[in-house]
Amino acid sequence: MSTLETLRAIWASGRAVINGWCTIPGAWGAEIMARAGWDTVTVDLHHGLVDYRDAVGMFQAIQLGGAVPLARAPWNEPGIIMKLLDAGALGIICPMVNSGEECARFVGACRYAPQGYRSYGPTRARPAYGEAYDQSIGPQVLAFAMVETAQALNNLDAIASVPGLSGIYVGPADLSLSLGSPERSDPTVPHVVEAIERVLSVCKQRGLIAGFHCGSPAYAHHMIARGFQFVTVGSDGAFLAAGAEAAVRAMRSDVPAAQASTALY
Amino acid sequence: MSTLETLRAIWASGRAVINGWCTIPGAWGAEIMARAGWDTVTVDLHHGLVDYRDAVGMFQAIQLGGAVPLARAPWNEPGIIMKLLDAGALGIICPMVNSGEECARFVGACRYAPQGYRSYGPTRARPAYGEAYDQSIGPQVLAFAMVETAQALNNLDAIASVPGLSGIYVGPADLSLSLGSPERSDPTVPHVVEAIERVLSVCKQRGLIAGFHCGSPAYAHHMIARGFQFVTVGSDGAFLAAGAEAAVRAMRSDVPAAQASTALY
Amino acid sequence: MSTLETLRAIWASGRAVINGWCTIPGAWGAEIMARAGWDTVTVDLHHGLVDYRDAVGMFQAIQLGGAVPLARAPWNEPGIIMKLLDAGALGIICPMVNSGEECARFVGACRYAPQGYRSYGPTRARPAYGEAYDQSIGPQVLAFAMVETAQALNNLDAIASVPGLSGIYVGPADLSLSLGSPERSDPTVPHVVEAIERVLSVCKQRGLIAGFHCGSPAYAHHMIARGFQFVTVGSDGAFLAAGAEAAVRAMRSDVPAAQASTALY
Amino acid sequence: MSTLETLRAIWASGRAVINGWCTIPGAWGAEIMARAGWDTVTVDLHHGLVDYRDAVGMFQAIQLGGAVPLARAPWNEPGIIMKLLDAGALGIICPMVNSGEECARFVGACRYAPQGYRSYGPTRARPAYGEAYDQSIGPQVLAFAMVETAQALNNLDAIASVPGLSGIYVGPADLSLSLGSPERSDPTVPHVVEAIERVLSVCKQRGLIAGFHCGSPAYAHHMIARGFQFVTVGSDGAFLAAGAEAAVRAMRSDVPAAQASTALY
Amino acid sequence: MSTLETLRAIWASGRAVINGWCTIPGAWGAEIMARAGWDTVTVDLHHGLVDYRDAVGMFQAIQLGGAVPLARAPWNEPGIIMKLLDAGALGIICPMVNSGEECARFVGACRYAPQGYRSYGPTRARPAYGEAYDQSIGPQVLAFAMVETAQALNNLDAIASVPGLSGIYVGPADLSLSLGSPERSDPTVPHVVEAIERVLSVCKQRGLIAGFHCGSPAYAHHMIARGFQFVTVGSDGAFLAAGAEAAVRAMRSDVPAAQASTALY
Amino acid sequence: MSTLETLRAIWASGRAVINGWCTIPGAWGAEIMARAGWDTVTVDLHHGLVDYRDAVGMFQAIQLGGAVPLARAPWNEPGIIMKLLDAGALGIICPMVNSGEECARFVGACRYAPQGYRSYGPTRARPAYGEAYDQSIGPQVLAFAMVETAQALNNLDAIASVPGLSGIYVGPADLSLSLGSPERSDPTVPHVVEAIERVLSVCKQRGLIAGFHCGSPAYAHHMIARGFQFVTVGSDGAFLAAGAEAAVRAMRSDVPAAQASTALY
Repeated sequence: MSTLETLRAIWASGRAVINGWCTIPGAWGAEIMARAGWDTVTVDLHHGLVDYRDAVGMFQAIQLGGAVPLARAPWNEPGIIMKLLDAGALGIICPMVNSGEECARFVGACRYAPQGYRSYGPTRARPAYGEAYDQSIGPQVLAFAMVETAQALNNLDAIASVPGLSGIYVGPADLSLSLGSPERSDPTVPHVVEAIERVLSVCKQRGLIAGFHCGSPAYAHHMIARGFQFVTVGSDGAFLAAGAEAAVRAMRSDVPAAQASTALY
Repeated sequence: MSTLETLRAIWASGRAVINGWCTIPGAWGAEIMARAGWDTVTVDLHHGLVDYRDAVGMFQAIQLGGAVPLARAPWNEPGIIMKLLDAGALGIICPMVNSGEECARFVGACRYAPQGYRSYGPTRARPAYGEAYDQSIGPQVLAFAMVETAQALNNLDAIASVPGLSGIYVGPADLSLSLGSPERSDPTVPHVVEAIERVLSVCKQRGLIAGFHCGSPAYAHHMIARGFQFVTVGSDGAFLAAGAEAAVRAMRSDVPAAQASTALY
Repeated sequence: MSTLETLRAIWASGRAVINGWCTIPGAWGAEIMARAGWDTVTVDLHHGLVDYRDAVGMFQAIQLGGAVPLARAPWNEPGIIMKLLDAGALGIICPMVNSGEECARFVGACRYAPQGYRSYGPTRARPAYGEAYDQSIGPQVLAFAMVETAQALNNLDAIASVPGLSGIYVGPADLSLSLGSPERSDPTVPHVVEAIERVLSVCKQRGLIAGFHCGSPAYAHHMIARGFQFVTVGSDGAFLAAGAEAAVRAMRSDVPAAQASTALY
Repeated sequence: MSTLETLRAIWASGRAVINGWCTIPGAWGAEIMARAGWDTVTVDLHHGLVDYRDAVGMFQAIQLGGAVPLARAPWNEPGIIMKLLDAGALGIICPMVNSGEECARFVGACRYAPQGYRSYGPTRARPAYGEAYDQSIGPQVLAFAMVETAQALNNLDAIASVPGLSGIYVGPADLSLSLGSPERSDPTVPHVVEAIERVLSVCKQRGLIAGFHCGSPAYAHHMIARGFQFVTVGSDGAFLAAGAEAAVRAMRSDVPAAQASTALY
Repeated sequence: MSTLETLRAIWASGRAVINGWCTIPGAWGAEIMARAGWDTVTVDLHHGLVDYRDAVGMFQAIQLGGAVPLARAPWNEPGIIMKLLDAGALGIICPMVNSGEECARFVGACRYAPQGYRSYGPTRARPAYGEAYDQSIGPQVLAFAMVETAQALNNLDAIASVPGLSGIYVGPADLSLSLGSPERSDPTVPHVVEAIERVLSVCKQRGLIAGFHCGSPAYAHHMIARGFQFVTVGSDGAFLAAGAEAAVRAMRSDVPAAQASTALY
Repeated sequence: MSTLETLRAIWASGRAVINGWCTIPGAWGAEIMARAGWDTVTVDLHHGLVDYRDAVGMFQAIQLGGAVPLARAPWNEPGIIMKLLDAGALGIICPMVNSGEECARFVGACRYAPQGYRSYGPTRARPAYGEAYDQSIGPQVLAFAMVETAQALNNLDAIASVPGLSGIYVGPADLSLSLGSPERSDPTVPHVVEAIERVLSVCKQRGLIAGFHCGSPAYAHHMIARGFQFVTVGSDGAFLAAGAEAAVRAMRSDVPAAQASTALY
C-alpha cells in the first residue's frame, strides 16, 4: 500500500517513483492498473477520455489497488483542481504552466490559506485518508507544474521558485512541438534534450522533483539515470492497444505461433 | 468493415474468424479493441464486468471500429438475449448449454417465429444495419451454444441437432473443472483434449462452426489447425494487465532496459 | 398530474387512456415526453434501449412531468418486475404471455401475498406516492399481459381469467409475425384483425382493459372507437427520427421551404 | 480490514456479524457506509435501487472501506448471482427461497463443480482477493437463503439440508405478510416470533448461521441474545431519511435547539 | 411544493428558509433529501462529489420532492453557472467571491442582458417551470455570493453593492481558516463571530438575504435569531455517516440497546 | 460518410452544410440524429443538457451514423475545448465571443503551436480518424466563433480577422436580447436583420463561413439564399417535443384522425 510517505521515502533515498497513467474512463480498468504494482497511478483528465465523475471512482479503485492516486488536471483551473483533491487525489499534475504567475495560480489552488487559496472541504479525502489528512496529508499534496513550451522554458526560474511547488513534470510532445521538433515521445533531438536537461538542473537546484512522461521502460530507465525521480511509463490505452494489436498480428501472420505467444505474455 | 457476410465468406473459404473479447465496461476501450483488427469482438456479459447498458455503447463502438459486434449472454435467459440482439449484437454466445432442451430455448430466443420465439423489435439493429436487417441479417444472427460441462458432452448430439444453431463454442475452464482437470486455459490434459476433439467432430458432421476460447495465439493457431473456425485470443483485461505488469516489471528490474522495451512494444 | 385514480376515472367513464412510449434511455427525454400531455408514459425495457438503472430516473422524470409511469418488463421474470414496481412504476406490461400459467406467474409478481408473491419493499414507491401506496396504490398497480402469439390466442381464456390481471395489451408486430402476416404496425389483414377483435371481446366479457400498441393517431382513434381503452401512439425514438428526417428532407429538397416548415412544426 | 476469515472467527467465537445495508446506488455512499465500521455491508439488488453496474463500484468501495462486501440478489437467478460473485461479492443473500429445490438451485449457483454449477471466471474477484480466491475464498463464499414465506417454513428442513448452504436469513416484512401479520419490521406478534424461533432452531441443529433483517439496534441486540449471528441494522436510505427528517423537524419546531442537536449528532 | 414565490413569502414575513445540502451524487438520494421537508435543497458541486451530469437528475428529483433546487457552483466560472441554471437550478451559491469585480462576474452570469451576460437557452428550466420562467422566474433566480476570506471582508461593501445580487452566504470553514481560527464549523471564536456579524449587518443595510452554512440545528436556530434568513443544516453525507456510525456504535456497545435505539430513530 | 473533406467540397461548390443539433445526452439519440442524413451534427454542451462524458459517446455515435461530429463548447475555456477535440469533435462552436482577444483565445485553443496553444494528445481523434489526423485533419478542425451580442458586433472586424478562424456562427436569441428585440428565433426585426447581414458581409470579405442557428427549414432556406453556408435546423429536443405534442394533440382532438396522422408522419 503506497502512501505519500512511501513516495517521500523513495525520493529521500534518491530513487524514482514509477507512475502509471490512465486515459480510459472506468474504475475497473483503474483497479487493474493499480494492482500492476505502480507507486502512483495518475488519472489523466487533460488528454485522457476521463472526466471528474469517472475520476472519483478511479481514485477509489487506485487506492484499493495499493497505489497513490494522482490526477492530471484538464487545465489550470482552480475549480476542478480543488474538486480532484477533495475527491482523494493526493497530487495534481497541471498542464501548460507557462509563467510564474500561472504557477502561483496553480499551486495556490492546491494549498490552504495562508499558503494558498484552496477552499476547505475534503469531503472524500478526509474519510479516505483519516484524520491525518487535515494534519499532514492535505497540506502536502503534490503539485507538479508541467513545463512543455518555449515560453515556460523562458520563465523557468519564475515557475520553479513558486513556494509550495513539489516538482516539474515535462511533457515531451508539446515541448517538441513548441521547439519545432517532430518527435512526440522519448525525445532525442539535441536542442530538445538540452531543454530537458535545463529543467532537470533547475529542479535539482531548487529541491524540486523532476518528472517525465516516458514512452517506454528503456527511456524511463535512461531518464532515471539522468536524475528524474518521477517517471510515467506507458498508459492503459497504450497497453490495451499494443496487446490487442500484437495478438491480432500474431493470428494474421504465419510466423511460428509459439514464438509470438512468448513475446506476448 | 467486417459484416456477417464477411464472416460467412471467411468460413466458406475454410479459414477462421479471429475474435477479440471485452470484459471491461466502456465504449472507448471497446473502440480501441475493435480498431486492433479483429473480425469480431465479443462483449462478455457473463464473466465480464459489463451489463446491458454498457454493452449498447460498446456495440456502437465495435461497429464503428470495423468489427462485427457479438455478445456472450450472462445466462440462458431470453429477455437479455433479445435485448442484446435488438441493440445490435450480430450474434450471441450462450454459456452453459447442457441439453438439447436448453439449446432449443437458447436458439429460439435468437430466431423470429416460426423458427423461434424472438420478439420483433430491432430498435437499434435495424437503423444500424439498414433494411437488410429485416431481410437477411436479423434472421441469420449467430447463435453459439457453449459446451463446457460433462453433462453437455453427454447431450452433445441433442445440442448439436437443434435447428438454427450456428455453432458450438468451447469454454476450457469450466470444461476442465467439470472433467476434473486443474487446467484453466489452453488444455493439454488428454481426456479434456479428447472431449474437445469430440465437439469438433460433431460440429464438422453437422456443418456447425466450432469455436474455442483460447489463452494465447499459439494455442489459437493450434486450434485452427485442428479445424476450429472461430477462435478468441486474449481479452481487453488480460492485455491491459499484461502490459502494465510488464512495464512495472521492466522498471523494477535491473535487466537492460532496451531489451525489456523491445519485448513490450 | 395523472394518478392511478385518474386512470380509473377515465376508464370508468368509458374513455381511453393515451399512453406515450420511451425507448431512448435518459431522464431528460422522459421528462420531455411526460410534459407533452400523455396520461401515462411507459418505459420500454423489452425492445427499448433502456435498462433498470435508466428506468428509475425516467420514473422520477415522468412523475415530475405529470404522467403516470408504467414499464414494459424485459421478459416475464419476477425479479425485474418487482424491481420496477419498487422503483415507482405504477403498472407493468409483460411481453409474450402465452398461457394461463405464464399469466399467473406474471400477475403474481405484481401482487403481494396472499394474492401473489410480490416481495414487500417499495423502497422508492412508498416515499414517492405516500402512505397511500401501502393501502390503495401498491395493491392495485396495473398488470397488463401481452397477447401477441398464436399460442396466446389459443390460451386466451386461461390468460384472461387469471385473478388480479388488469388488462390485455396487444402487440401487433409479433402477433402478425406469429399469424403469418407481413404487417408490423396498424394491422389490416383480416385474420389478424379478427384475432384482435377476439381479444377485445374477451376483455369486455371479463372486465379487463383492452390495450393496443398503435403506430399512428389515426389507428389509435380507430381502436378506441372499437373499444380499446389503453392506446399507445408513437414512441420517443419514432418522434425524434421522424422530426429529424423531415427537417433534413425539407433542407435537401427544392420544394417551397415555407410549406415544408408548416408540415413540420 | 474485515475478510471472510474475520467473519468465521466471529462466528467461531459465538459472536454476531454486524451487517450494514445499501439501497442507494453509488460508490461514494457505499464507502461512507463501509467506513462506519460494519463487519459486512450488503448491496441490496432486490429492493434496493441498485443494479449490477452500481454494485461493482460499491463492492470496490466497501472493500476499500474495510468491510466484507455481500449482495442480496434481485431474485433466485443464476446469471446475476454469478456476476455478483465474479465482481467481488463474498456472499449472496437470495430472496424468497421456498423449497429445497429452489435452495439447491441457489446454492449451486454459488459453488463450482462438482458441488454446484457456478461457472469459473472470477474476473474481478481473483485480482481483488489474490490467489487465495481460487483456493479458499471462492469455494467458500457465503450463501444465505431467505426464508420469508409460509411455504418456506413448510419446507424448512429441505431448505436447511442443502449441502453448501451457509445460513438462513429471515426477512420479517414478507414473513409477516405471508403469515397474515401487519407488522413490517421487528416482529412481536407471537405466531411470527414462533416461526422465527423455529428457523433459529433448525439453523442451530444444522450448523447454519441464522441471520435477521432488523429495524433497530435494540431488536438486533435482542436477536443476537436469542442466537442470531448475522444481523442487519438499518440501511443507508433509512439513515439518510431519518437524519434529514430529524434536522428539518428540529428547525421547524420551537423546542430548545441545543437539545434537538444532541439527539441528532 | 416550494417555489421561488414561496421563498420570497418566507423572507417577506421575516422568517428563514431552511436549506438541505447534497454532496452525494445521485437522484434517488436527492429525492430522499427533498422529501424530508426542506424549503430548498442545494446540490453542492464545489466540495460535493457531484458534477453537472449528476446535478441535472438531482434537480429533477428535488423538484419532484417538493423543494426548490439550488446549486453551489464549483467555482466562479460562467460556463458551469449558466449550465446549472439552464438545467433547472433556481439559484446559485458561488464560492470564494473576494471582490466587487468577482461578484459582478458571478452575478452577470446569472442575469440576462442588459443586467448581465447570461446566455439565453433555458433548455430544461422553461419546460420545467413553464412560461413563467421567461417572465418572472428566470430573471429572478437567486444569486448568493460566498464571503469566506479576509479579502472578501475587506471588499464587503463592493461585493454587497453589485446590482442583482440576492444575498451573501457565509462559509465558516474557509472564513475561520482565513482569519487564523482552527474552528471548522459553528464558529464561536470572537473575531470570527464579529466578522460574521459584519456580513449580517451589511446584508441588512443593503436588503440582501444573509445565509449561513450551519453544522447543527442549534447553531442554525441561533443564526436565525441573529437575523440570518437562509440557513443550511447538515448534509446528506453527514446524515448518512452519523446514522451509520450511531447504529454501529449501538451494536458494538453494551449500553442498554433500547436506549440506543431511542436515540437513533 | 461525411468528413471534413466532404464539408470543404460543399463549401467550395458554394452550397451549405446542413447541421443537426443535440441537446439531449445519450449516444443512442445521437445515432438516431446522425442517421437522419445531416452533414454535421453538433453536440451542444452550452445550452444542451450534455457534458463531456456524454459527448464522447455521442461523437462515436455521430461518426458511426455518417455525419461529422462537432461540439458547441460550454464556454470559451481552453480545457474543455481541447478535451472535445481530443475526443473526436472535428470542430468547435464557441459561444459569446465578444472581442478579438477572446476570439484569439478561442482559436488558439483549437490550433497546435505555433499557430495556437492546443496541447498535443488526440487520444481518441487519432485512432478514430487515422494517421491523417496528425497531418491534415487535426490542424484544420473547424473553429466557429459565435457573434451574439452588441459588443461582438462592435468588435466584428477584430473577431473576423483572427488567423485560423473558420467561420462565424450567429445565435439569434442572444443577439436579439442584446439588441433589445423580443424575438428568440428566426429574427425578422429590421435592425436585427441588418446586424445579421453585416456579419454575413464581413464573412464574405474575409473568406469565412457564415453560420446561423435556424428555427425552421423555411428560415434556413432563406438564410442559405442570403449566403449562409452552415445552417442548423431544429434540435433533437425540439423534434421530440414537437412529435409527442402533435401526437397527444391528435389524440385529444376530434379532428378526423386520418388527417392528423398524415400531418405527423
